[in-house]
This record gives sequence, structure tokens and C-alpha cells, in this order.
Amino acid sequence: MSRKSKGINAERDLIHKFWAVNIPSIRVAGSGSIKYPVPDVLVGTPKNKLAIECKSTKSLYQYFTFEEVKQLIEFSHLFGATPYLGVKFNNKQWIFLKPENTPKSNLHFIIKSDKTYKKALIFDDLVKTLKESF
Amino acid sequence: MSRKSKGINAERDLIHKFWAVNIPSIRVAGSGSIKYPVPDVLVGTPKNKLAIECKSTKSLYQYFTFEEVKQLIEFSHLFGATPYLGVKFNNKQWIFLKPENTPKSNLHFIIKSDKTYKKALIFDDLVKTLKESF
Repeated sequence: MSRKSKGINAERDLIHKFWAVNIPSIRVAGSGSIKYPVPDVLVGTPKNKLAIECKSTKSLYQYFTFEEVKQLIEFSHLFGATPYLGVKFNNKQWIFLKPENTPKSNLHFIIKSDKTYKKALIFDDLVKTLKESF
Repeated sequence: MSRKSKGINAERDLIHKFWAVNIPSIRVAGSGSIKYPVPDVLVGTPKNKLAIECKSTKSLYQYFTFEEVKQLIEFSHLFGATPYLGVKFNNKQWIFLKPENTPKSNLHFIIKSDKTYKKALIFDDLVKTLKESF
């Protein structure tokens, strides 16, 4: 499976999970290719919107480029959404981190499979956040 | 050009226009085909979100099915957005109507090219609405 279709499958998996609990979510068309700073997925309730850059991997770590994260933050600021980096590691559940809580090297933001992040949220945490402010 | 690609071109035209005035807008992936009630285009500023079902036509009128409009309203309610039907008639500018201001027959919602709608907005009106509440 190509990297692109793997990315799209991860996005689809995530929007199905949100709709399953009646929270509207959409995949953004052309998110990896168009010239505008757009996220992969948008999720929202009337009071709370999340913009998510999401990736799935069979590796033990996942990178996000500075450019991806910069664009995610820019979109979120203009649109009025909270930015999150979402990763689905193989055989684990989705985890979500705000960019400011995500470790980075000189080259990338990095989320590791075997590490516990104090500020990471799981899917149910995001749902709670969204529903509390509904 | 297929009906589907014509629809996508209309959506692209619209999002370029919004980004040109620095307002974030996105096309929703799979909007015509997936099982969830999603709009074609989402536009937003921190205080104001619009969900738009958009079509372009060379005909003198444009239909929207009851199902399309129902889904647009449902999404808008859950997500927290104002629903609009947008039409680009040939050689005219985009016009936008809220569903409740759009005439309908027994079969469809209908917007006509040669008619003046008191509550129709043009693109600049939408921008004003979005920027006023920024």
C-alpha cells in the first residue's frame, strides 16, 4: 500500500470513530498536496473544533515535519480550532498531542511508540473534551 | 467534463476565492459519496463557520435535492456552522442562500439564474459576515 493511501486509511479510520459517537468529522480534500495550510482532519461541535494532522505507522516512532506542524498551527489559528498531532501505532490506540507538548529534534517533531507522554490524549479524551463543551 | 469533476472545479474555484482574502476554507473529501452528512465546502474564522453545498451550472436554474439540503442542515447543526446553498451560474458571480430562504417545489430546492432573491448573498457579503465577527 502506498504511503498516501495508508495515510488516507488512517484518516478514514479516525473519522469513522468520531461519527460512531455522533461527532461530525471530515477529511480535508488534497490535504497532502494543495498549496494552502490545511489539516488532514477537522472535527467539531458547536463550541469546540479540532484540527488534526494524522499518521499511522508500523514503525516505533512517527515524524512530523516542521512545515506540516507550522501549517497545522497556522490553519488552526485562522479557522479557530485546537491543533493536534495524531498517531496510530500498530496494535495500539490513537494518541494525540498538541504541538507544544510534542518533543522535537533539530529536524522533526517525533512521537515514539514506547514512550508515555504525560499530556497525550487518547480518543476517548478528545471525545470528552468535545462533548463537555457541546 | 463529468458532472462530478465539474462539481469539484466549482468547489476549488470557491476555496481559492476565500484563501485569496486570507479566509481558511477546505473541500470535504468524499462529500458526494460517503455515508455521512457532510457539506462540499467548509469556511471559517474563529467566531463564524459556514457549511456550503455548492454547484455550478450552464443551465438557467439549479436544483438541490431534499436529501442534500437535509444533510447540510444536519451537519451544520452538529458541527456549529451556518448552512448555505451556493450556485455559480455561467458568466455570473456566485450567489448564496440559506436553505430557509430558498424556494422549493414538491421535488427540489430551486435557484434560478434570472431571478433576484432578496436574501441572496454574493461572495463579498459572505466575506464581510466572516470578517466582522473575526
